[in-house]
Amino acid sequence: MSRKPRGTLIIIGGHEDKDPRGEREILKEVTRRANHGGKSLVIVAVASQYPREVIAEYHEVFEDLGVKRIVDLGVRSRDEAYQDEAVEKLRHASVVFFTGGDQLRISSQIGDSPTFRCLEELYHNGATIAGTSAGAAAMPDTMLIAGPRDSSNRISALGMAPGLGFLPGVVIDSHFAERGRFGRLLGAVAQNPKNIGLGIDEDTAIVVERGERFTVLGSGAIYVVDGTGIGYSSLSEKNPEGVLSIFGAKLHVLGHGDRFDLLTRRPEVAVDDGEEQSE
Amino acid sequence: MSRKPRGTLIIIGGHEDKDPRGEREILKEVTRRANHGGKSLVIVAVASQYPREVIAEYHEVFEDLGVKRIVDLGVRSRDEAYQDEAVEKLRHASVVFFTGGDQLRISSQIGDSPTFRCLEELYHNGATIAGTSAGAAAMPDTMLIAGPRDSSNRISALGMAPGLGFLPGVVIDSHFAERGRFGRLLGAVAQNPKNIGLGIDEDTAIVVERGERFTVLGSGAIYVVDGTGIGYSSLSEKNPEGVLSIFGAKLHVLGHGDRFDLLTRRPEVAVDDGEEQSE
Repeated sequence: MSRKPRGTLIIIGGHEDKDPRGEREILKEVTRRANHGGKSLVIVAVASQYPREVIAEYHEVFEDLGVKRIVDLGVRSRDEAYQDEAVEKLRHASVVFFTGGDQLRISSQIGDSPTFRCLEELYHNGATIAGTSAGAAAMPDTMLIAGPRDSSNRISALGMAPGLGFLPGVVIDSHFAERGRFGRLLGAVAQNPKNIGLGIDEDTAIVVERGERFTVLGSGAIYVVDGTGIGYSSLSEKNPEGVLSIFGAKLHVLGHGDRFDLLTRRPEVAVDDGEEQSE
Repeated sequence: MSRKPRGTLIIIGGHEDKDPRGEREILKEVTRRANHGGKSLVIVAVASQYPREVIAEYHEVFEDLGVKRIVDLGVRSRDEAYQDEAVEKLRHASVVFFTGGDQLRISSQIGDSPTFRCLEELYHNGATIAGTSAGAAAMPDTMLIAGPRDSSNRISALGMAPGLGFLPGVVIDSHFAERGRFGRLLGAVAQNPKNIGLGIDEDTAIVVERGERFTVLGSGAIYVVDGTGIGYSSLSEKNPEGVLSIFGAKLHVLGHGDRFDLLTRRPEVAVDDGEEQSE
């Protein structure tokens, strides 16, 4: 992934609004991109334990929202990710949508397969890759797979694994405020402050253009943990059971319409709130 | 409270270890101070709906830990806070311990009463005031009383009220990681960045000396939100339902033994971890 991608990522914190009476802002954005260019929306449910139910649910929502061509990638296991059928379906996608489930299923079943290489090609040529919940967590180089919930950030409890690599330099956590995941995101950033931590609330998404900059959609908040300023961190293999001490992290909370530049690490205020302003 | 206090505050995030087989580090610290000088430990259960049960529980723990004189302040309502009996009990206290419950009960029932003035006097003359959960939240000038749990920080959902004023310039939230309260503490700091936000985990405490500096005790973490660097905040009465955007807050996570200087707003590493280091 050394070339600069021309595509878009829509990274969703889970439980995006699907109610016909609701705004459905995030899935409308996915729909708008799917119908662009007359190509198809391909749904990937490899993360899910109940792929048929999940596919049926999204099929119904996207049909209701007016997506013209909806395709189930049909990959449930690694051997299927090697079949020409899957690659052929992907070739005609304007949007690929990863459902929730278990992010390790995504990386272990499609990582380095012909399906994955086709996904990379699509993204580099301008397609949109969307993912919710586990599908969101799988986007970076390194994905968070486990960590303490509802307890402070123990160093030993953090699990990380190699992700899909569509958005290098970040670590993503979904269901963020809802599942009290602040400690684990902070711990992940402390492991290597080169990574920006992105906590994404439910029914909230970031739309990342060309891997450089994102805009916030949906009803919740995005928490950005920037470890650049961390002056002290107690992280050490000698101290696996200890509480992590971290001094001097920087934190931004972004709401609807706010933007963030991943290269300069600077937030920008939503334009419709008045004049533009940066930190 | 213009004079500089000579006393100590022990501010506990709730659910401190009370198990005879456990460490009970925090309550041992309370005990150590209670036995100093041969005075008494006075328990204040005005916050609780079940004061008798709560008093009985703490009486048992403190007796087991070796506190020599344990007294129930006996104040359950505002009229009792005006009685000489309560003030007389307090006069002989080396430690006053506020239990959990409802922090508005603490401020509304004893605020500005003779009992409260005696408490202030004690603290200024060197006594220890301890509080857990609601008893912790009530310590500052302004106390957090309500806010969203498990959802992002909505401006309208933050409730604040005037607290006891023993620790001006901070806002305290207890049960911090356990109840996913990051958003509401951040919102409270954004309301006025002059206040430092302190999120205290369960079974974790800060021991504040002379109102200037604290040390961390217990098994969890202390989250310090310093709003000094906030360059943009969307907080406005015009936007009560919006998600709060905050750019540029500073965050420290402190573990056992770490210290924090409230005047310079600088953390210091636990001494036993090696040489001292500041941010």
